Formats: sequence, structure tokens, C-alpha cells
Amino acid sequence: MQDVHTLTKELIIQWNSFFAKRTELMTRSPIRELLKFTTQPEVISFAGGLPAPELFPVERIRQATNTVQKPCNIVPLKECRHLRSFLAQRLSNETLRVKPDNILIVTGSQQALDLIARIFVNEHDRVILENPTYLGMLQTLKPYDLTYLPVTTDADGMRIEALPELLRQQPKLMYVVPTYQNPQGTTLIKERRLNLINMLEPYPVPLVEDNPYSELCYTGEIEPSLMELDAHSLGIRELNGRVMYTSTFSKILSPGLRVGWIAAPLPVIDKLVAVKQGTDLHTSTFVQYIINEVVRDGFLESHIATLRTTYRQRRDIMLAAMEHYFPQEVSWSHPAGGLFLMVYMPQYLDAEELLQEALAYKVAFVPGVDFHVGNTGHNTFRLNFSHESPPMIEEGMKRLGQLLKNAVQQKDLLLRV
Amino acid sequence: MQDVHTLTKELIIQWNSFFAKRTELMTRSPIRELLKFTTQPEVISFAGGLPAPELFPVERIRQATNTVQKPCNIVPLKECRHLRSFLAQRLSNETLRVKPDNILIVTGSQQALDLIARIFVNEHDRVILENPTYLGMLQTLKPYDLTYLPVTTDADGMRIEALPELLRQQPKLMYVVPTYQNPQGTTLIKERRLNLINMLEPYPVPLVEDNPYSELCYTGEIEPSLMELDAHSLGIRELNGRVMYTSTFSKILSPGLRVGWIAAPLPVIDKLVAVKQGTDLHTSTFVQYIINEVVRDGFLESHIATLRTTYRQRRDIMLAAMEHYFPQEVSWSHPAGGLFLMVYMPQYLDAEELLQEALAYKVAFVPGVDFHVGNTGHNTFRLNFSHESPPMIEEGMKRLGQLLKNAVQQKDLLLRV
Repeated sequence: MQDVHTLTKELIIQWNSFFAKRTELMTRSPIRELLKFTTQPEVISFAGGLPAPELFPVERIRQATNTVQKPCNIVPLKECRHLRSFLAQRLSNETLRVKPDNILIVTGSQQALDLIARIFVNEHDRVILENPTYLGMLQTLKPYDLTYLPVTTDADGMRIEALPELLRQQPKLMYVVPTYQNPQGTTLIKERRLNLINMLEPYPVPLVEDNPYSELCYTGEIEPSLMELDAHSLGIRELNGRVMYTSTFSKILSPGLRVGWIAAPLPVIDKLVAVKQGTDLHTSTFVQYIINEVVRDGFLESHIATLRTTYRQRRDIMLAAMEHYFPQEVSWSHPAGGLFLMVYMPQYLDAEELLQEALAYKVAFVPGVDFHVGNTGHNTFRLNFSHESPPMIEEGMKRLGQLLKNAVQQKDLLLRV
Repeated sequence: MQDVHTLTKELIIQWNSFFAKRTELMTRSPIRELLKFTTQPEVISFAGGLPAPELFPVERIRQATNTVQKPCNIVPLKECRHLRSFLAQRLSNETLRVKPDNILIVTGSQQALDLIARIFVNEHDRVILENPTYLGMLQTLKPYDLTYLPVTTDADGMRIEALPELLRQQPKLMYVVPTYQNPQGTTLIKERRLNLINMLEPYPVPLVEDNPYSELCYTGEIEPSLMELDAHSLGIRELNGRVMYTSTFSKILSPGLRVGWIAAPLPVIDKLVAVKQGTDLHTSTFVQYIINEVVRDGFLESHIATLRTTYRQRRDIMLAAMEHYFPQEVSWSHPAGGLFLMVYMPQYLDAEELLQEALAYKVAFVPGVDFHVGNTGHNTFRLNFSHESPPMIEEGMKRLGQLLKNAVQQKDLLLRV
């Protein structure tokens, strides 16, 4: 049998010669490959972007499923308008009025990014993005073989003084994660937000504001969204400027539900609906109706309050432990919200090498290089602080601190020799 | 306010000038636009591909949700391997052994088609498909600006004698809905299946077998799948030939769940996983776990038996009513299974015109032209027989019959003048 098998392998489809050109550029997410390892129970994982599973509103979801009277009598044509209205209201305030028709429900915010890329990006286009940026967006964009115009970042978000030169290069799209950014946890400060909107004024470039974390605020206030500032600067109350805004229930309810949304001007929504139909017809109405039951009557607000308390504590424990255990050669970001922070090692250290050692000590994180463009960021890595319990965070930082000290010391010895 | 609004509309993004080239080719599904109309309660709709909602296993799904102990503790990394094993087993028999690793769970079988197109199709490639074929596939393929190589069909499926010439034109992919086809309800007979597999032998073209309906069998036996025949002809038991097989729970459980699957050789699954990650990360694990609970212990088999009984009856009622009410100038297909049949009017009648009249009489169907390539099929339309109750089927056929008689008569009068 094995012989026939080997023989036919050669005889039939040489799959590689049949894949489309774009397929060569596709790669699996290094995080998801890493996550396979981290599911082993004894591993302390700071790798995923995962909420604390013990905070999932399991009982509420169970009740919601019972309440949705005919959970399966939810056929494609009966979309959940209630959920769109709920989201439109949540996004609206004195400055901006988002209508239900401005909302498209999507299969997680990853799909939001994919659909936006599909309707906007031609092969070899130029796209402005932060460096580092969300690696899922880089994965989505890869098959288009784009030229990235990266904007460097600091503790206050994008260093926007670099923007005018990039904008003159006729970018097709600008992509930003302005609030509690993935991977750094940093936030674009208000002053820069206002300047950014002003700088964009002469250029007709659409702006994608990817905002899955802004509800998870632990210190200070939530900055106004770019969507809001854009409308304000145009003197309009409608969502009819340059911003397409995406977010998700993954970080505030559960990633396993796969429901996110896009808020955008109507001409964009129109095209997004067309491309989504060819992509997956529509997002599970079953799950939409359940979420609609879960979030109503103020539940979402009280649930987010719980998340904030828990995650704030975990962030503080992680930061304190890093202060205690990490060598002075290493620095890190201090996020005011979200799920992540980033560690910056000396340039001579490589996070992928460190990860190999860390895995041997049953600690996982994500090397920063995959969030970077232009082959930068080898000395950085991302830590998630929402998923592990406080004792595990403490223990994990202790192990990582020791590994970092060893690495610094070793290099030091090598340099002296 | 309106002035400012109008002004800014001109000032900011001229969205049309920013969309990618492929976006111009995207269109909304005519069915889904039509379905908006058919949700009005007094409309008798034969338009959608919808199951009978009263047969949805609502209670079973509710129980399943209660049984899934932690419905939300289902994070991306914990995929539902059980469901993949279940599907692999169901697809396996004495001839073919499908392994769980050959299965990718997707967000409905529409996503299966989209992902396959993405990894295989370059712009302007040639693709062989039946004419007519599933319009959702045509919608997925549109943005690639392909050259279609259509194969005409008759009551026994594709007329495969046309294939050799098409195969010589180096098609990139061949797409077939061989069993109870959408839109015609026809099935590729076994003799042609065997000949098809033989004809393909010298050509290294991958074959997509889209098979959402084969479980819904009312007359005769289910034909062996092309996937199975392909493996058999290669003398292998593994899924390692040219066929990629797609199906879904939409037609046997509920379309609102959005869970389908692809069975394919491992090199294809590998690429599909990469492209899916960039598309929507993964299919709702919450829903996967629920389905896994619903289908086990033989429930799926008994549920499918119920569906068969009900749908067989509805098909028979529709066929009898057509026989009774439709004019002799009109013919139609006689499906042995599935959800659809197709009506063929005289060439001088146009189904889109008929639809306008039918809607005035509160009856809906889908004009056939959107399932066709090469601007053919104007005189055809598709009827769904699973969704409406027997009295409504009877009443609907009566109204349609009258409209058809009027149309034929009118044309007759015009021709005499």
C-alpha cells in the first residue's frame, strides 16, 4: 500500500505548481503555531491574546441560548438588526451619530481586516502602518505583496512627524491600532490624534482604526476615537469621513464566539456586503442572537467593569514582578489598558533564541519580530497579562527574569573574551 | 447641516476611486436581495435554499448548549477535534479512508469555496464548471475576472463528452456540484462519474466537488462521491488524489450555524489553514462544540431521515401541482434529492420579467440567469421545494401556472398579430 501511495503522490496533482501566485506568500500565524505548545497544562503562557477564561460569562450565555426562543429559526434572511442597533448606539455620542446601516457584523474582527483589504488593496499598493503592528493584519496583507510605509512608535504611539513624507507617496490605505495597541499596549495620545487628523486633511487616504481593546481601560481615560475626531474636524455628525472602524466581542465576551463589526461610511458598507456574501454569506445568526441577549440590560457594562478590575490587577502584578526580577538592561512598555505589553531587550539579544530557552522552562511569549516590518524588532517580545492567574504571572516573570539575566551576563562574558 | 454634509461628501474620500480593481467586479447576490422581499409573511417563497424551519432541531440544540459545560471556555487554541473526527469517519468507507487531518472546519461551505478560490486562482485563469452552476460560486469567482469553460448539462448531469476539449485548454480548476445540483436538482449519473474520472486522468487539474445536498436523497440511491471514485481509480485508500470535497451542516441542521467543512489532501489543507487564519482566524468554536453535541449518538441519522420524509413529500406535491397547473409549453427537472428543481420555459419567455409579475401575486422564485455563464438561461428559473408547507406549495404552483399560461398565451397572440 505504501508503494502505491508514494507512487500516486508523484503521479497526480503537483499541488505546488497549481497554487495561485499569492499563495506562496501566505504563512501560518507563528502565534497559533506557538499556542499548540502552550495548551500543555504545565506551561505558563503569556503568548496568546486570550482573556481570562474564568471570567467568561458562561452562565449568562447559557441563559441567553435558552431565551433565544428558536435558536435555529435564524435563517440568513433574518439578520439580527437589534445587535446592529445596539452597536450603533454604543458608538454614537454627542459628536458622532452612527446609524445601524453604518454597521456590518463580521466573523470576528480578523474578517473585518480581511474584507477591508480585499475591497481596497491591489497587488503592490503602498500601505501606511505602525511598526510594530498587529501581526494578524500583516498576515492578511501578505498575499497582496505590498510595500509597507512603516511609522515608528514610542510610548505615546505613532511618531506622527514621519507621516507627511509617507502620505506624499500615495498610500492606498492607512492602518492604525491607536488604543492599547497590540503588541505594545501603548496608546496614541490625544495631541497626536488631533495632529494626525489634521495632517491627513490634504490626502484622500482611507484610514482603518482597529480598536478591539479600548473598553479595557485601567488607567486614565479612554481617548476619543479617530473616527470621532475625523467627523468632528469635518464638522459633520454622520459617519462619512475617511475612517473605517473595526472592533469585536472577542476581548470583552469570548474569542470563541467569532463576532466583530465594522463601522464605516455607506459606500464602503455597500462593497463590504458584496464581498462578504462571496466570502461566507453572513456571520452566524445563531451566535448574533445569543450575543444580543447577553449584552442587553446593561450586562455588558457590568461585565466590562469586572474585566477591568481583574486585568488591571494582573497588569500591575506583572509590572511589579518585572521591576523586581528583570535586569536593568531590559525595558518595557507601561500600558494604560488592553491585554499586552512589550519588552525591549538590548539590541544584541534575540527574542526567538530566548523563546527556545523559555519553552524549556515552560514559559511562553511571542517574539516581537513577527509584529514588525522591515526585519526589525528582533530584540523585542510581547507579553499578555490577562490570561494567567496572579501567582502564575509572578512565577513566570521570575523565570523570565532569570533567563534574561543569564542572557545579558553571557553576552557580557563573550564581549569581555 | 445638510450643506456641510454635501460639501464634505465631495471633499473627503471619493471611495470609488479608492476601491481595488477587483471590487468593481463584485456584486451582491440577487437571491439575497430577493430574500429581503420574501420575508414579508404573506409571500409564498420558492426563492431561498432554505430548509423547513419547523424541522430545525431547536430543542436538541438548546440541550447541547447546556451540555457544553463551558460554552465560552472555547478559545481559539482548543479546536473541536471531535467534530473533525466525526466528519472524517462519516466520509470514510471501504474504499476511502479520510483522516481528521484531511478535514478543515470552515464558516459555512461558502467559505470553503472562497478559500479554495483564493489559494488556487490567479486573475484571468480558466475554470471548468457546469452551466448552470451554483451562483454563490460564481459570486466568489467574479473578482478574479476568470475565463469560464462551461459544460452544458442535461437530466443526467454534465454532458461530459464536451470535457476533453475543455481540459486541453489548461484549466486551473474544475468545479462540480454533482449530486442534486443547485440549481437544477439533477445528479451526475454513475456512468458519467466514472467516465469523468477517466477523462481527467491525463490532466493534472484539481477538482472541487461541492456536495451540500447528497444526504437529502428521496428516490434511488446516493451515487458514490467523485472523491471516492477518484481514490478508487488511483488504487489508493487515502484522500490523496485530485479532489477537494466540500459540504456543510446548513442543509441538514441549520444555515444560521455557519459550519461547513473541506476534505482535501494534506498539502491543500496546509495552505487552506494559512489562508483561513488571515481570513477569520477560525470558525466559531462555540458553535463547533454545540454541533458536536447535537450530532452524536446517531441523532444526525434520525434527523436526516425526518428531513428526507418531509422533503420527499414536498417535492412530490410540487411536481404533481406543476403537472396539473403548468402549461404544456413548459418543462422542468425531476430531482431525486436536494432542495431545488428548475423550470425551463420556451426560449421566448424571460424569467426576470415573469418574476416581476409573480411578485405582484406574492410568489417568489429565482430567475435562472444568475446561475448561468455566457448570458444563457434567461428562460429558466429555480424553485425550492423544502421551505414552504404543502398547501402553500399547491397555492404557489397554481398562481405560477396561471402566470405561465398568461405569458405563453400573450406571446402567442403577439406572434399571430
